[in-house]
Amino acid sequence: MTTEQLVQQIHQKKSFLCIGLDVDLTKIPQHLLELEDPIFEFNKAIIDATHDLCVSYKPNTAFYEAYGVKGWQSLEKTINYINKNHAEIFTIADAKRGDIGNTSSMYAKAFLEDLNFDSITVAPYMGKDSVEPFLAFENKHTILLALTSNDGAFDFQIKNNSEESGGKELYKVVIETSKTWKNAQNLMYVVGATKAEYFTEIRKIVPHSFLLVPGVGAQGGSLQEVCKYGMNDEIGLLVNSSRGIIYASNGTDFAEKAREEASKIQQEMQVILENFK
Amino acid sequence: MTTEQLVQQIHQKKSFLCIGLDVDLTKIPQHLLELEDPIFEFNKAIIDATHDLCVSYKPNTAFYEAYGVKGWQSLEKTINYINKNHAEIFTIADAKRGDIGNTSSMYAKAFLEDLNFDSITVAPYMGKDSVEPFLAFENKHTILLALTSNDGAFDFQIKNNSEESGGKELYKVVIETSKTWKNAQNLMYVVGATKAEYFTEIRKIVPHSFLLVPGVGAQGGSLQEVCKYGMNDEIGLLVNSSRGIIYASNGTDFAEKAREEASKIQQEMQVILENFK
Repeated sequence: MTTEQLVQQIHQKKSFLCIGLDVDLTKIPQHLLELEDPIFEFNKAIIDATHDLCVSYKPNTAFYEAYGVKGWQSLEKTINYINKNHAEIFTIADAKRGDIGNTSSMYAKAFLEDLNFDSITVAPYMGKDSVEPFLAFENKHTILLALTSNDGAFDFQIKNNSEESGGKELYKVVIETSKTWKNAQNLMYVVGATKAEYFTEIRKIVPHSFLLVPGVGAQGGSLQEVCKYGMNDEIGLLVNSSRGIIYASNGTDFAEKAREEASKIQQEMQVILENFK
Repeated sequence: MTTEQLVQQIHQKKSFLCIGLDVDLTKIPQHLLELEDPIFEFNKAIIDATHDLCVSYKPNTAFYEAYGVKGWQSLEKTINYINKNHAEIFTIADAKRGDIGNTSSMYAKAFLEDLNFDSITVAPYMGKDSVEPFLAFENKHTILLALTSNDGAFDFQIKNNSEESGGKELYKVVIETSKTWKNAQNLMYVVGATKAEYFTEIRKIVPHSFLLVPGVGAQGGSLQEVCKYGMNDEIGLLVNSSRGIIYASNGTDFAEKAREEASKIQQEMQVILENFK
């Protein structure tokens, strides 16, 4: 999917919501456990109930690998279901991969070609040759970890021991450096909503890039703040919510309740988009 | 496996060799492709031919994920085969994972508990709460990326914009910070062999930790140099070779040739260990 198609979807659906499909068998409605593939059945119901309210789904691979071969089957079925029935959806493999060049190529092929995700999250620690194999895929997107939503972001990403001397925090170095890589036009960035004040700084470096924003909802970030500082002329934001939507109820009404929660966020986004025009 | 058991194995086998099981279907002997599970059959033959010459096997998960569900089946069969037939081997899931706390917990369970690897490689970018879930497993080991063997290591890990002011390179900050984390005694570190001169610096920070050293062989690192600067009283090194061993031949003699290559390295290690006493 091209960035233009994603922007078009945002305007059509009046939503820049991404729903995280992080399925934990201990949290889903227990009646689903009797089915052959509870993870897929859960996802299918969530997707059927919410696809008109969001522009993106983001399965986190950890939740599938935790169930071994069966989990990978559920992941394959989920991405195939989305691609077949809702081709307008921007799909994100939240995999946070990254390895030396020939190995990153294997990951890139697995997620962007074989599973046919539109994008994958990638960790920057190993630098240029660990990320460029992902960037090589046309009309696919590499979402680089920049500033994450967890406490650990303060350990290295916002490391300020060099600030005193006018040096830069690591997350800025990462974003700036990544702009020089081959096919950098295929980059997006993960920026946590719990750190809204940093969006201003990031927009100085990448005014035009899309930012994937986790941390709204369960992790405490504010949608209004994120949009105030992070939105650009092409919207440029995908705001993710996982637990707040998919676990809104663990009864037989789970899909309906998930829709209600997704709808609340979509309506808030619609107001923001209308005021933004 | 405890660290003491690993050290004991190194002395018994006179080897600190780790063999990387990075199986690429385009590179293995073509007669194996007729079998039902070529990846597992290849691994089984390599393991049968080399298990007395090495102390560790390290499948890189990218090479298995590249083949989807079938690849995961091959990975499961491979780790089960090692654990059942060669329980003395230290197994490493080269997965380079790392995510927010509850998600890292899922990865940790998948690799350290369900697949029952002795260890997993983890990326440090997301900080403390992304790594500690891996450290929580008793007698399991978390091998943190510190200084990798690829060119991209110079992008962020050896970033010297703060050096001018007496600041530290990122890889040092990562190692120092990680020592303060809960269950830090379960940490080991990835340090690339292509940067032997850095081992002296790293040994000042972690004199007692085990270091997993890729980059000997195909990537050009020197075993002698690595040992000169990196070895400690408990040896403290696992030196990995992948392509140089497993792809020594792509004919029907592939396992025999792999043994020959592994044997060359083991003999070199034996001399080093004897001189070290």
